[in-house]
Amino acid sequence: MQFTSGIVEQAVEALSSFPGIGKRTALRLVMYLLKRPEMEVAHLADALLKLKTELHLCEVCGNVSDHKKCHVCVNPNRSEEVICVVEDFSDLMAIESTAQFKGKYHVLGGLISPMDGVGPDDLNIASLVGRVEHALVGEVMMALSATVEGDTTMYYLAKKLKPHGVTITCIARGIAVGGEIEYADEVTLGRSIAQRTEYLL
Amino acid sequence: MQFTSGIVEQAVEALSSFPGIGKRTALRLVMYLLKRPEMEVAHLADALLKLKTELHLCEVCGNVSDHKKCHVCVNPNRSEEVICVVEDFSDLMAIESTAQFKGKYHVLGGLISPMDGVGPDDLNIASLVGRVEHALVGEVMMALSATVEGDTTMYYLAKKLKPHGVTITCIARGIAVGGEIEYADEVTLGRSIAQRTEYLL
Repeated sequence: MQFTSGIVEQAVEALSSFPGIGKRTALRLVMYLLKRPEMEVAHLADALLKLKTELHLCEVCGNVSDHKKCHVCVNPNRSEEVICVVEDFSDLMAIESTAQFKGKYHVLGGLISPMDGVGPDDLNIASLVGRVEHALVGEVMMALSATVEGDTTMYYLAKKLKPHGVTITCIARGIAVGGEIEYADEVTLGRSIAQRTEYLL
Repeated sequence: MQFTSGIVEQAVEALSSFPGIGKRTALRLVMYLLKRPEMEVAHLADALLKLKTELHLCEVCGNVSDHKKCHVCVNPNRSEEVICVVEDFSDLMAIESTAQFKGKYHVLGGLISPMDGVGPDDLNIASLVGRVEHALVGEVMMALSATVEGDTTMYYLAKKLKPHGVTITCIARGIAVGGEIEYADEVTLGRSIAQRTEYLL
């Protein structure tokens, strides 16, 4: 790309550092911004900056929050007995939108992945052990991705937490609702048979 | 989406105003930014802001530029005799990267499109007429998209400029290089036959 302006080039370079956004898409975004009012662009720049300057990680669970503690942790109506462990706050948002879970959360900030150089010490694990030790937690529910990294992390956490006398559970893995058996992969189908539940009338 | 942080929500809203970026992609971008150093995010915010505060439109041709006149207009090695008319600066960049054009440019900033409420007065047309009137321009080369809007704009400009005694040309439309005749659409194929050129050995 031959740029006729250093300012445009810088903006394209900065935007194309995003995952999944190449130079051409970045140029399209820049052209869009050029046509928007200055106020709107200033608002965007400010919103991005605030992510680094004003956003807190909840000191209890590690969730992103506008305050020192997140709104789930300070909510007295949520049960202290179950902690749901998730990889990132986007998973927490997904679970919240099901309205099926009324306990508290713990956000790891990633999964154990030796391939990417991520070990247990890089994750928000120590404080989870602390919460299980000192509070009235009866169950730790693992809601991690069904991948090698998710399974590794779950195994590590179960080993760490079991000695403290909590029940470790894992969200069900099986045929997705609306999914057809014919198209399910063998591992998923096998797991869904092994973990079949009684059909109650 | 249930946000647990107003700051995250604002950033997602701002990013998802971009064309082609939905809420889920915006959330992915926000999660990426949260993992980057503050310096990098500040650099991005600054680069976007500069687009509105420091970028100029060249006072001669309307191209984006870091200065009052763009580097094409101030280049004494570029011919004053041909002006290439383009829709936007990204088209100018595309033509520059072919290294086939050694004249000057004129950037319209859009195309005439009654459906979108864009008329001739909304575009950078008056200054083009001025350039043709007062300078030694012999040819105006139209490099506009081969769409209804492009053709409408070309027709309008030709009507305006012809009385000033300039030659109006249009970049060739036909089978793309590498394209197979079998898959070319009828209109393009028809046009490429009507505008056939002599094959010189």
